[in-house]
Amino acid sequence: MEFDLIALIRERCARPRGDVVLGMGDDAALLEVPAGQQLVASADTLVAGVHFPPQTAPGDIGWKSLAVNLSDLAAMGAQPAWVMLALTLPRADGDFVERFAEGFTELAGKHDVALVGGDTTQGPLSVTVSAFGFVPAGQALRRSGARVGDAVFVTGALGDAAAALRLMRDAGFGTRNSMNEQTWAELQARLNRPEPRISAGLALRRVASACIDVSDGLLADLEHVCEASGVGAVIEAGALPISAALKGTFAPEQCRDYALCGGDDYELCFTASETDASRIEEALARTECKITRIGRIVAESGVRARDAHGGTLEPPRRGWQHFAP
Amino acid sequence: MEFDLIALIRERCARPRGDVVLGMGDDAALLEVPAGQQLVASADTLVAGVHFPPQTAPGDIGWKSLAVNLSDLAAMGAQPAWVMLALTLPRADGDFVERFAEGFTELAGKHDVALVGGDTTQGPLSVTVSAFGFVPAGQALRRSGARVGDAVFVTGALGDAAAALRLMRDAGFGTRNSMNEQTWAELQARLNRPEPRISAGLALRRVASACIDVSDGLLADLEHVCEASGVGAVIEAGALPISAALKGTFAPEQCRDYALCGGDDYELCFTASETDASRIEEALARTECKITRIGRIVAESGVRARDAHGGTLEPPRRGWQHFAP
Repeated sequence: MEFDLIALIRERCARPRGDVVLGMGDDAALLEVPAGQQLVASADTLVAGVHFPPQTAPGDIGWKSLAVNLSDLAAMGAQPAWVMLALTLPRADGDFVERFAEGFTELAGKHDVALVGGDTTQGPLSVTVSAFGFVPAGQALRRSGARVGDAVFVTGALGDAAAALRLMRDAGFGTRNSMNEQTWAELQARLNRPEPRISAGLALRRVASACIDVSDGLLADLEHVCEASGVGAVIEAGALPISAALKGTFAPEQCRDYALCGGDDYELCFTASETDASRIEEALARTECKITRIGRIVAESGVRARDAHGGTLEPPRRGWQHFAP
Repeated sequence: MEFDLIALIRERCARPRGDVVLGMGDDAALLEVPAGQQLVASADTLVAGVHFPPQTAPGDIGWKSLAVNLSDLAAMGAQPAWVMLALTLPRADGDFVERFAEGFTELAGKHDVALVGGDTTQGPLSVTVSAFGFVPAGQALRRSGARVGDAVFVTGALGDAAAALRLMRDAGFGTRNSMNEQTWAELQARLNRPEPRISAGLALRRVASACIDVSDGLLADLEHVCEASGVGAVIEAGALPISAALKGTFAPEQCRDYALCGGDDYELCFTASETDASRIEEALARTECKITRIGRIVAESGVRARDAHGGTLEPPRRGWQHFAP
C-alpha cells in the first residue's frame, strides 16, 4: 500500500527538470548542481493541530508545506529547484493524497520545483518538506549582515495570517459572521496559501544587507536578524503595511499587534544601507511585490516598536514558539 | 523553547566540513557540491510505534534515524556528507534530545557527516532525516541495471533485526529468557544500531550492475530491483548468510524466513555480471564487509526462493509494508 501512495504522489507531482538525473523510484535521488552555484537547503515540519488546524483542507496543507520551505529559500535569495516530501498519514487515504498533491503541485508548478524524493509512513498527520535551490557563489542573503543605520523593509502586508487563524478559532465570537465573504476569503488565503516571495528574494541579491522570512512574527524574526548581526532595530508602528481586509475587520491597535507579532505571514523582512535603498525600490519595482520601509537598524540591542509620538509599544507577545507554555 | 532545543542539537551535533559554507542558524544551509560530483539525496521518516518500539532508547532512535538514510546513500554508492534533521517531540524534553544526539552524532562522526539544518516541532514522536552525499558523475549504483545471468550478492547477514523485534515483542514466550546476554545484545544491536554499508557501496561503484538496501526484507527489495530491471531472480535459500546469534536462537526454517522476509537489516543486495564477480570479491575484501553470493538473475519475472532440492519455498510474507492491513 505504501508503494501505491508513493506511486500516486509520483504520478501527480512528477515534473521534468534537466538537473534531475534520477528522481523518485530508487534508493535516493541523483541531482546536478549547476557550476558556480551553491546549494541552498532547508527543512520544515508541519504537524496537524500545531501548525495548521486539523480541519484544514488537504490541498491547503499540500500548498503550505511547500510554501514555508520555499519561503526559507526566498529569504536566502535562492532560486528553487528540488523538493523532497515525507508525508505521515493516519491511514492509507488515496483521496487525501490526491487533494494534498493538488495544492502541492500547484505551487511547485509556479516555481518550476521538481519533487525528487519522498517517504510515506503511517502515524499522526504531519508533513516534512526539504527544499533545495541555487544561488551564485557568494550572493546568498544572510541574517548576519545588518549594519547600524540600515533601513528595515518588509514585503507585502503583515498580520493577515494570524488574524485569519484567530477568526477561525473564535468563530463563535461573531466577528466572522459579520464579515463579507470576499474579505474572509482573502484573510484565509493568506493563512492557507501563503505566497513565498521568491522573485523578491532574487531581486535582493547583492542589495539587501540581511534578510529573513517572517514565520514567527515580525518582532521575533527581526530579533533573529539583530542577534546574528550584533545590532538592534526600531520599528515605526505607523508604517507597518496592513491589508485592506485586515483594516476593515479589526481596530487599528489590533491590526498593529497582528502585524508585529502574528506568525505565518511568510513575507521577507530585510535591511539595506541608505545608499542602497533606492536601488532596492528600483529592483523590487520589477517584481509584483510591494515593499514598505518600516524602521531602522540601531546600535542598541533588541527590537523596539514605537508609536507616532515616539513612545515604545509593548505588544502582547513576541511571536509564537513551539513548546512554549 | 524551540530555539533552545535547536541550540542544543546544534551544539551537540556540530561538525565542521569545508563544503558547508553556512550550517544551522540561518533560514537555510549554504552548501558546495565538489566539481564533477553528483548530489545524492534521500529522506526517511521513523514514527514511534511504527518504525521502532515506543520504549526504544533515545540514543538508538538517534542512531537509527541517521542509519536508515545513510543506508540509502550506500545503496547508490555515495559518499555521505550532510544531513538535515526534523525532530517532532511530544514536549520540550532536553534530556531526550541529549541522548538522541549522542546516538546520532556517534554514527555521524564515523562517516564525517555534518548536520546542516533542522527543525524541532511539537507533536507525536517522529524523526525525518534527509541525507546527502556525493558520487562521481555517472558512477551511481541504481536498481535498474540487473541483467539475466548476473549473480546476486548480499552483504553481512540477514534476519537478525526482524528476529530481535520479534523477541522484543514476544518476551513472554520465554525464548529470550533462555538466551545468553551476549547473543541477545548482538541481535538487539542489529535492530537498534544498524551499520550502513558505506564502504561496501563505495567499493561497488563501476562493478555492481544494480544495488538496493534491504529495508523491507530481501524478497521484497530484490523484487524492486527486478521490476526496475525488467528481470527476475532465483535465491538459493541454503546460501543465505545467517549470523551465529540467529542460528543459535531459532530453528533453521525460522532463520531462513527471517532472512528472506525480515525487514530492517540495512544490508546491501546487489547484482554483478559473472565476469565481474571476482572483481567484486576482490573489491569487497578491502572493506570489513563480508559478502555472500545467494542467487542469480533470470528472465522470468518475480523473485523465487528455492531449497536444496530445487523446490520453491513459500515464505510467510514478502516483506513488511506500512499501511498494510
